[in-house]
Amino acid sequence: MVDVMSGPRPGMVGGGQLARMTHQAAIALGLSLRVLAEDSDDGAALVVHDVDLGAPDDLDALRAFAKGCDVVTFDHEHVPTEHLRALEAGGVVVRPGSDALVHAQDKLVMRGRLQALGFPVPEFAPVHDVGDVTRFAEEHGWPVVLKAVRGGYDGRGVWVLSEPPDKLPGTEVYVEQRVAIVHELAVQVARRPGGEMRAWPVVETVQVDGICHEVIAPAPRLSPGLAADAERIGTAIAEALGVVGLLAVELFEAPGGLVVNELAMRPHNSGHWSIEGSTTSQFEQHLRAVLDWPLGDTSPRAPVAVMVNLLGGAATDFVQTLPRALGEVPGAAVHLYGKTPRPGRKLGHVTVLGDDVVEVRQRARRAVELLRGEA
Amino acid sequence: MVDVMSGPRPGMVGGGQLARMTHQAAIALGLSLRVLAEDSDDGAALVVHDVDLGAPDDLDALRAFAKGCDVVTFDHEHVPTEHLRALEAGGVVVRPGSDALVHAQDKLVMRGRLQALGFPVPEFAPVHDVGDVTRFAEEHGWPVVLKAVRGGYDGRGVWVLSEPPDKLPGTEVYVEQRVAIVHELAVQVARRPGGEMRAWPVVETVQVDGICHEVIAPAPRLSPGLAADAERIGTAIAEALGVVGLLAVELFEAPGGLVVNELAMRPHNSGHWSIEGSTTSQFEQHLRAVLDWPLGDTSPRAPVAVMVNLLGGAATDFVQTLPRALGEVPGAAVHLYGKTPRPGRKLGHVTVLGDDVVEVRQRARRAVELLRGEA
Repeated sequence: MVDVMSGPRPGMVGGGQLARMTHQAAIALGLSLRVLAEDSDDGAALVVHDVDLGAPDDLDALRAFAKGCDVVTFDHEHVPTEHLRALEAGGVVVRPGSDALVHAQDKLVMRGRLQALGFPVPEFAPVHDVGDVTRFAEEHGWPVVLKAVRGGYDGRGVWVLSEPPDKLPGTEVYVEQRVAIVHELAVQVARRPGGEMRAWPVVETVQVDGICHEVIAPAPRLSPGLAADAERIGTAIAEALGVVGLLAVELFEAPGGLVVNELAMRPHNSGHWSIEGSTTSQFEQHLRAVLDWPLGDTSPRAPVAVMVNLLGGAATDFVQTLPRALGEVPGAAVHLYGKTPRPGRKLGHVTVLGDDVVEVRQRARRAVELLRGEA
Repeated sequence: MVDVMSGPRPGMVGGGQLARMTHQAAIALGLSLRVLAEDSDDGAALVVHDVDLGAPDDLDALRAFAKGCDVVTFDHEHVPTEHLRALEAGGVVVRPGSDALVHAQDKLVMRGRLQALGFPVPEFAPVHDVGDVTRFAEEHGWPVVLKAVRGGYDGRGVWVLSEPPDKLPGTEVYVEQRVAIVHELAVQVARRPGGEMRAWPVVETVQVDGICHEVIAPAPRLSPGLAADAERIGTAIAEALGVVGLLAVELFEAPGGLVVNELAMRPHNSGHWSIEGSTTSQFEQHLRAVLDWPLGDTSPRAPVAVMVNLLGGAATDFVQTLPRALGEVPGAAVHLYGKTPRPGRKLGHVTVLGDDVVEVRQRARRAVELLRGEA
């Protein structure tokens, strides 16, 4: 399948902003990313040459898509695990493989595996009825956190409870301790099939209602000891789970140390800063890892990088707001995802590099305010 | 034509590497570049979503292409000037406009205009027969340079003569003095319709047989006075000719000062370093300029950037050579253009950033050697 002229053909299931930005990185490497998008106006489908339309839970669509790919990877976690296993059984090179990816798809599997491996996770328990929640809270104390086992993202699928619920959500859930959070952190690691790994500096993420608003790289208030712990946890999880491609580990910094929150096995919002801020971006590194090519240098290019997400505002009209933002914040790197503006939706992000975290953050925030039409 | 959701639609005539890299920049700005390519396997046509096939000298193809664009700009200079005028007469927004672009298309027009405006150019004369060459050389001394008025690039269309030629080339030519070159330089300027301009630091270009092999940014051996002269010449030409978009001015540093060699009004090989090396890349800046958006910060991101062109070698097979180059030079930013390898063809480039010009240059050259399969 590999053509001397055009190189291998990587495919990504999902047509969102991660596929869109991975295509930019693929172009530099002499490749063209093939994308399986649900809709022709998905962010990646608007800019990618080789678009296939189909649902990520349609095995026939996945099989047809995979025929045109030398390796299949992911923009999201919503491909059913049994479909991944069917693709693998049919000889498709799936990276990360289903045995690894299930830990980013099923939070209960992830919690159980990480606990068994000795990684720091909150106490947790499966939930079948309201009584399971109450019993867990009586043992570990209120409040507790109820989480959807599959499919939650951006704060969806998470419920903080201070008392027994009237009823359970209509999806499979589990319960865990609420961690006392000092800061939220993330560490990203890329891993090749043979085990070569590279990590980026640990970042601080600023979350509001479970949605990532800002990322500061490197984490500005983190002790060297905890930074080393975070990197060690990231690389050890990648190794233990056999991840191929990128792994993002979201961590809570708690009074007693670090606690693992969630895993993602793909490019991740916490790594967007690396497009400008690191010698190798997370998107290029993900491609290099899943293609089994040597990994790139993850050194930062500036003392501080701040990435601020552009969430849809009340009246977001980029034709008006983009020129103003570009004019007022000339050093801002603006990334728009081509998505229809809706309040709260992730429509893009802005990264600013510099020396002083306060000043850099203020400039990135200002660009986003202007893009949202708020200033 | 402007859609609130997707923004304006820029179109580029020509499907080469400049369009390919402009598409990468367009994606970040929330846009999708529309491209008029001659062949479906042109570098840009392989990765762009919205490809139109047609020849740049086919007025019907140009008109059909322009219908889907809010602004039309260029990957090369090979659109006949009369076709540009016809598009403009039909209401198409062409940037740069035909009155400016002719100076990058017709070297005799360019030489005459720049001389009349007082810019430093070599002595030159039109040529109708061999006698014109001989008379010019008798006045100004041998050797002289014969140049194609239109269509030359990468050393093609340039003949250095030490004696009268037997016959003239089969294309319109003119003759000029051969300049004693100390170094070759280039300066790039972006200009918006209203006159706002931004220049990047002046770079040194290393040419072999008229083909650019390396670019060092900023030019390491240039006096501050000549650097200021070069920037002044660049901005003054952009202003005087009414350029919209990017202008590259190739300059000779001669014993007596600077001499203008050639002009290009598009992204240019001498600016590829800016993708990693400057806060705003030449590709994003060109889009911002032709869309009449505020221009970006052109500050360098590192003390030194070196770009080395990847010219096709005897046995270029990137499936073999790319992983090795990525492995041995982990900080190299590799850009492959998706073109069929042929000896001497520009197939890609490598940029390395750093502090020390000798070390950075050595790393970039090493990556290119490995990509060419020479090491």
